[in-house]
Amino acid sequence: MRGQWGNKLQLSLFGESHGEAVGVVIDGLPAGIALDMEAIAFDLARRSPGRDPTATQRREPDAVRVLSGLYRGKTTGAPLCGMINNVGARSQDYEALLTVMRPGHADYTGWVKYKGFNDPRGGGHFSGRLTAPLVFAGAVARQALANKGISVGAHIQSIHTVRDDLLDDAEVSAEALDALRAKRFPLLDPSVEQAMRDEIERARASGDSVGGVVACAAVGVPAGWGEPFFGSVESVLAGLLFSIPAVKGVSFGGGFGLTTKLGSEANDPFLIDGEEIRTTSNHHGGILGGITSGMPITVRVGLKPTPSIASTQRTVDLRTRQPAELNVGGRHDPCIVPRAVPVVESAVLLGLLSLALEVDGR
Amino acid sequence: MRGQWGNKLQLSLFGESHGEAVGVVIDGLPAGIALDMEAIAFDLARRSPGRDPTATQRREPDAVRVLSGLYRGKTTGAPLCGMINNVGARSQDYEALLTVMRPGHADYTGWVKYKGFNDPRGGGHFSGRLTAPLVFAGAVARQALANKGISVGAHIQSIHTVRDDLLDDAEVSAEALDALRAKRFPLLDPSVEQAMRDEIERARASGDSVGGVVACAAVGVPAGWGEPFFGSVESVLAGLLFSIPAVKGVSFGGGFGLTTKLGSEANDPFLIDGEEIRTTSNHHGGILGGITSGMPITVRVGLKPTPSIASTQRTVDLRTRQPAELNVGGRHDPCIVPRAVPVVESAVLLGLLSLALEVDGR
Amino acid sequence: MRGQWGNKLQLSLFGESHGEAVGVVIDGLPAGIALDMEAIAFDLARRSPGRDPTATQRREPDAVRVLSGLYRGKTTGAPLCGMINNVGARSQDYEALLTVMRPGHADYTGWVKYKGFNDPRGGGHFSGRLTAPLVFAGAVARQALANKGISVGAHIQSIHTVRDDLLDDAEVSAEALDALRAKRFPLLDPSVEQAMRDEIERARASGDSVGGVVACAAVGVPAGWGEPFFGSVESVLAGLLFSIPAVKGVSFGGGFGLTTKLGSEANDPFLIDGEEIRTTSNHHGGILGGITSGMPITVRVGLKPTPSIASTQRTVDLRTRQPAELNVGGRHDPCIVPRAVPVVESAVLLGLLSLALEVDGR
Amino acid sequence: MRGQWGNKLQLSLFGESHGEAVGVVIDGLPAGIALDMEAIAFDLARRSPGRDPTATQRREPDAVRVLSGLYRGKTTGAPLCGMINNVGARSQDYEALLTVMRPGHADYTGWVKYKGFNDPRGGGHFSGRLTAPLVFAGAVARQALANKGISVGAHIQSIHTVRDDLLDDAEVSAEALDALRAKRFPLLDPSVEQAMRDEIERARASGDSVGGVVACAAVGVPAGWGEPFFGSVESVLAGLLFSIPAVKGVSFGGGFGLTTKLGSEANDPFLIDGEEIRTTSNHHGGILGGITSGMPITVRVGLKPTPSIASTQRTVDLRTRQPAELNVGGRHDPCIVPRAVPVVESAVLLGLLSLALEVDGR
Repeated sequence: MRGQWGNKLQLSLFGESHGEAVGVVIDGLPAGIALDMEAIAFDLARRSPGRDPTATQRREPDAVRVLSGLYRGKTTGAPLCGMINNVGARSQDYEALLTVMRPGHADYTGWVKYKGFNDPRGGGHFSGRLTAPLVFAGAVARQALANKGISVGAHIQSIHTVRDDLLDDAEVSAEALDALRAKRFPLLDPSVEQAMRDEIERARASGDSVGGVVACAAVGVPAGWGEPFFGSVESVLAGLLFSIPAVKGVSFGGGFGLTTKLGSEANDPFLIDGEEIRTTSNHHGGILGGITSGMPITVRVGLKPTPSIASTQRTVDLRTRQPAELNVGGRHDPCIVPRAVPVVESAVLLGLLSLALEVDGR
Repeated sequence: MRGQWGNKLQLSLFGESHGEAVGVVIDGLPAGIALDMEAIAFDLARRSPGRDPTATQRREPDAVRVLSGLYRGKTTGAPLCGMINNVGARSQDYEALLTVMRPGHADYTGWVKYKGFNDPRGGGHFSGRLTAPLVFAGAVARQALANKGISVGAHIQSIHTVRDDLLDDAEVSAEALDALRAKRFPLLDPSVEQAMRDEIERARASGDSVGGVVACAAVGVPAGWGEPFFGSVESVLAGLLFSIPAVKGVSFGGGFGLTTKLGSEANDPFLIDGEEIRTTSNHHGGILGGITSGMPITVRVGLKPTPSIASTQRTVDLRTRQPAELNVGGRHDPCIVPRAVPVVESAVLLGLLSLALEVDGR
Repeated sequence: MRGQWGNKLQLSLFGESHGEAVGVVIDGLPAGIALDMEAIAFDLARRSPGRDPTATQRREPDAVRVLSGLYRGKTTGAPLCGMINNVGARSQDYEALLTVMRPGHADYTGWVKYKGFNDPRGGGHFSGRLTAPLVFAGAVARQALANKGISVGAHIQSIHTVRDDLLDDAEVSAEALDALRAKRFPLLDPSVEQAMRDEIERARASGDSVGGVVACAAVGVPAGWGEPFFGSVESVLAGLLFSIPAVKGVSFGGGFGLTTKLGSEANDPFLIDGEEIRTTSNHHGGILGGITSGMPITVRVGLKPTPSIASTQRTVDLRTRQPAELNVGGRHDPCIVPRAVPVVESAVLLGLLSLALEVDGR
Repeated sequence: MRGQWGNKLQLSLFGESHGEAVGVVIDGLPAGIALDMEAIAFDLARRSPGRDPTATQRREPDAVRVLSGLYRGKTTGAPLCGMINNVGARSQDYEALLTVMRPGHADYTGWVKYKGFNDPRGGGHFSGRLTAPLVFAGAVARQALANKGISVGAHIQSIHTVRDDLLDDAEVSAEALDALRAKRFPLLDPSVEQAMRDEIERARASGDSVGGVVACAAVGVPAGWGEPFFGSVESVLAGLLFSIPAVKGVSFGGGFGLTTKLGSEANDPFLIDGEEIRTTSNHHGGILGGITSGMPITVRVGLKPTPSIASTQRTVDLRTRQPAELNVGGRHDPCIVPRAVPVVESAVLLGLLSLALEVDGR
């Protein structure tokens, strides 16, 4: 619960948007993983703002300092703490929000929960900035999973109403996932890129925002991971994915689309493929009865439009308990979907590494 | 993980479809809750097959024996174990399946995970029968939450392509939820009942099956429950909901629909309503930043069509590792959505009671 | 916490002394362990009263019904529930105690914690009767550990002031542990048996009680299990051992005796023994830095004299909040140390199986 | 497990002796606690070496940087990370030990567990240096508990064979505990101080070391905290106390001494004292049936002599797998007992705060 998660692999997330640092302690990592710090920096850069014209122009140099758990470039098996200093935060942009609650943000709920003691600057601990250490942890997990032959990648399935539905749940490959990761605006169908960028630009121009869907896949996961019921692979991954700010929906394989199919259409027939047992289609998204089937794991994540918008909004001032109008200053992403891609991947990577460690211990 | 779940409230689920019993140990319940055993039996009956012509004709008399944790009709605070004996299971219907894997079921993944030692009769521990003790636990949680002024109810939002979209996320009331609970086929829009029943009957007649969506709401939950990130209310509830067999999608509030809205449409303005702060709309489904806002919590759950169908299916025989054809005998539900309604409610009830106990201790 | 324990191996204990049943759900067991039910019954008989003249004459036929998790005599990997019905409980012996608190018992603390709603009959959930399912779970763990070459045994190190100090922490063998297990009154030094029995008989004759120390050892545990700090082997085992009613002290290896040794005496030199690295002495009790060394794990457990005594005691009546005198009726053990031997073993067995599963996954 | 601990209150410990930093993330703290950083520094100074002639002359300036969870001097309720930079570590002193295992240390067990990848410098993650962030966390917990009227203090009960047995388990007061905390060498019986110091000096002069016992008490804890069985107060506290390096024994109240008492001597009679119910004696150490009784909680902790000694020791070289002789250089404490006093207090403080939060939520 709270900032801590896990069982065999454990995460402890800390920090505030405008505090001294954000970071994460990762416990339970296998010893002896050689960490490629450049690959980690690459994943962090994918999440960083300012990388692409669609994102906010604030720059957050997300350089991670590894404080522990690493010796001569390899994990030691002891807890690994990665810390990212906060620099250049412009708190004054947010001061006006202290008691005038931003709609769609955690200002009100955090204020109630923490009885007014929470750090309100830039969203404090609720800030999307906390996804930076999550991506760091995910990048570490990616290297541990690569040693087991597992690849995870994601692409933008939709921005507002523009869609890229080319992900084939049954045939996705490690190569395709790697290719996506190299792209600034990861799509399987390049023909929709301009339309998606136009949606974002239109939102920015009107001081508004748009959301979208990220589709993520993992290949190379063997059959037999997970648990029936409470420890189902869906439960583990959804628990992590719903930790990401702005996520309001999660589905596996055919997802909600299966609800309009017949059983005879939705069932995936088994077949023998050389030595392996697999299914001809993959409506089950690689998970049956909570347990991996060996087919690609596919998951879709719906992100609401970022609540930070420029237009005047109706709200309440907590101090006066009177209606108020709010005009949020500062620079904001009109669309966080592209930056959310590595965050979604990280949640899946961390969930899978956790499941792996449950099975083979270390 | 596994058959156990929880932190302050803990569940330990056990049993197999054709074993001696199924049951659950509930730990962390507050002491002194007077249990209304008739209300519990009522919820169990809602889940039972044979209650409605749409369901299988098997009869499972789900009488619960409370083995512990209850004294003079009230919870003692010690672990409460509820056991339901299995009677009348017809194992012979399933014997043919032992090595010929049913598509869409956990036969293959369970066999890999447990190295062939799992109980294969009727799906064993993977059986939907395990949702009976879950509903028992949910019914106990319902009574604990009623003492706190919280009501949870659900309705059928869709069966195959027939929809009832009348749930108003912002205006749902405890009375409406109670009224739903009294119905055999819980709908807000009675005009679609016949069309839904026709879908189910058509599936039964063709030896096929259909799925659907259950929409669930909780009213009376105060603001301030839950946690940012890993312990978000969405994470807690989704973790439980994805434990339910056949669930492939979960969304909160506006869910995936928010991905095609603008931020200015999706944000819910705050207003002062007497002494209370609330929002005019409820696209956020009662949860902002992982924490309850005081608005109704609304969640949609997508259930795939039940994989047990009568038509011949292609699969593999695990013993011979050769292709095989499968004709499943036995009596099966052409649609489990109506029976899933109290199961979805139970997952939400248990998640909310757990969150409540985190906040106020006991 | 509460009645649940664990991580990779999880226990959920339930029941009351005079309720319908006591039991335990064991989750996370490896699949495919053939359970020898006679060996399990043997361990339960060792804990049962009435087996030896030193114990109470009440008879508790501790026949376990396995409700789940077992198929064709082997564990399935699903949660295994063992239930023991309570028969022949004579509640009337205890009725007088309902508001007059027994010194040394949990009557008062349980009443405060559970606000008077706890089941008071025979100590309710606090009863030593709950150690019966613990011994069942330990007996299951014993069989899982035997497959890994690990033996656990214990003996009576002291009853009141009579001592058997023959346990050699460095040289204890599996054979010696097995021999102890076959004895009704397990001692390494048979010459003190009569003196110990005399202590117990003297206590019984005077309506009093005596305590003692149980020394337990595990051999065959490989080096490298456990964790530094919070997951230290000492932390795991002590957490379980202090769950046993009447335990007030736990020590490992040289224990408190090391506090009067010099470092040069307490350090155990390493040596090469064939292919193996071991230590010449074993003051560290098989655990260094929280992690197993491959040497025998040795632990001593101090049990206070059972608080149920016949003499008149001063106490308070909770109803009247006035001083009261108490004369406890019923039949009680003048010494629970012999019956505690398999309970201590069980705590160690369960802790070690949990540690084993953390290392090798299943 | 591992570097993480807890449930409602959670700790995540990280760092190595000669790495960049050591630290801890504390999650679940109530919001709004004003942190007195001087009081925290005072507790850290009590643990620091170089404070007293009995300790090593190395100086570790344990200045804590709070990276998160604190805003305008008060806890926010979000995870609080405290980091202590390592400065002045002299790694060269330890290089020779890399493959020649120090007896009594975790060199061998850590090497096996982490397959040789652990940081060996200064004991790495196994170092007593990790108790610095534990004391930081304990000092934070002390302030949270002070708000609830709870005080925790400890004294040196013995060094080698010299004893101070003046702690009265039934009559210890908050004032006495506060007075102990102000002392450099905390004793109730000042007449034994010189003899204790002589023991330490004698050990130092001969290149040897001595251990001892720390006795700790908590007053002001209300009745009704804790759980029967696995979540017993003894289990929670012992689990934390056995996390402290060098601890080999833990006992509560009368502890092992109760094993030589009769039941009629060991039982603590209840009496009415004004409005309160208490006991006349406190052999139960404030805990009955795993639950607090309202009497002072008393616990004794046995620490082995520090294994770092100057004399030549027999051991094995892991590289050559040949016998070796070892002469440890560097400066070492001949006795860590005085420095362990605030560490023992911290474990008790953290355990009690965790129990408190379980009861009243926040």
